[in-house]
Amino acid sequence: MIQPVRILGLDPGSRTTGFGIVDVINRQHIYVASGCIKTIPNDELAGRIGVIVENLNEIIEVYRPNQAAVEQVFVNVNPAATLMLGQARGAAVAALVMRGLPVYEYTALQVKQAVVGKGKAAKEQVQHMVVQMLGLSGTPQSDAADGLAVALTHALRNHSLAGRIGLRDIQIKGGRFQP
Amino acid sequence: MIQPVRILGLDPGSRTTGFGIVDVINRQHIYVASGCIKTIPNDELAGRIGVIVENLNEIIEVYRPNQAAVEQVFVNVNPAATLMLGQARGAAVAALVMRGLPVYEYTALQVKQAVVGKGKAAKEQVQHMVVQMLGLSGTPQSDAADGLAVALTHALRNHSLAGRIGLRDIQIKGGRFQP
Repeated sequence: MIQPVRILGLDPGSRTTGFGIVDVINRQHIYVASGCIKTIPNDELAGRIGVIVENLNEIIEVYRPNQAAVEQVFVNVNPAATLMLGQARGAAVAALVMRGLPVYEYTALQVKQAVVGKGKAAKEQVQHMVVQMLGLSGTPQSDAADGLAVALTHALRNHSLAGRIGLRDIQIKGGRFQP
Repeated sequence: MIQPVRILGLDPGSRTTGFGIVDVINRQHIYVASGCIKTIPNDELAGRIGVIVENLNEIIEVYRPNQAAVEQVFVNVNPAATLMLGQARGAAVAALVMRGLPVYEYTALQVKQAVVGKGKAAKEQVQHMVVQMLGLSGTPQSDAADGLAVALTHALRNHSLAGRIGLRDIQIKGGRFQP
């Protein structure tokens, strides 16, 4: 029996973590939810991480995804910003791991290639294609669109996701199912 | 009634997270435990973060600290290393926050000043002073010693910790108790 796969896509940033949830049923991609988790600027580390972790816990509780895809961040030129980005990303993945979700990683290049068809696409093109692919009536905010784009990338790179999820002994490696 | 305060000190690194647990009873510092959490090199992010989170959960489960102190990391020259460090640190703080532990941050300078008395101390001096202050019979591994040093810094910078923990309406700000 084919079971729907619900993917939680995350685009972690130092201040805003975009998220998007997509269902995959019979090669169809269905929009479930999307949005942004915003931390309070100048809040202390534990406070900022608390916001990320608590919101992700709530999102997982409400939507119950069974897979997670996270965008691999670009390394920023500014070391302090890179550290902040790393901390936000580490906290987000920790929240996913603690909820027992398998986590797949995709680079920004892979996301653009999967969603737009070329690696050098502008942010607006990603937003546009997310709207098209999911048949949305409005355009989601940029970070939310990135979250949805990562979820779609995971779905597109694993075409047979919905067909294979029912099988046993699936081997998972490097972001791809290997039957 | 004066209750003992149990501090979990952490020194997060991209590969090794040092931890040290110290009890504070009547201005006395008593060694409880220390060690290292080592991630598997070249493991994927979710795997490395899983190791950090699971081990910290176990440490918190076994030793039940009521406060946590984390060393503020130096920003590395290498952006990729800085990102990895940030991710490890974010995951560690996420694990502490999810267990409801209050988290205090101290810079490496503050740790050295508190434990050795000067900000420019060598790693060996920190190890030496940790051994002296806790009356240890052996010298802990460098990262474990750093974990103990952060815990001791939190204790030393809040001298009245043990005396005040029983009071209500304590205001906590910037790593210090403000009665």
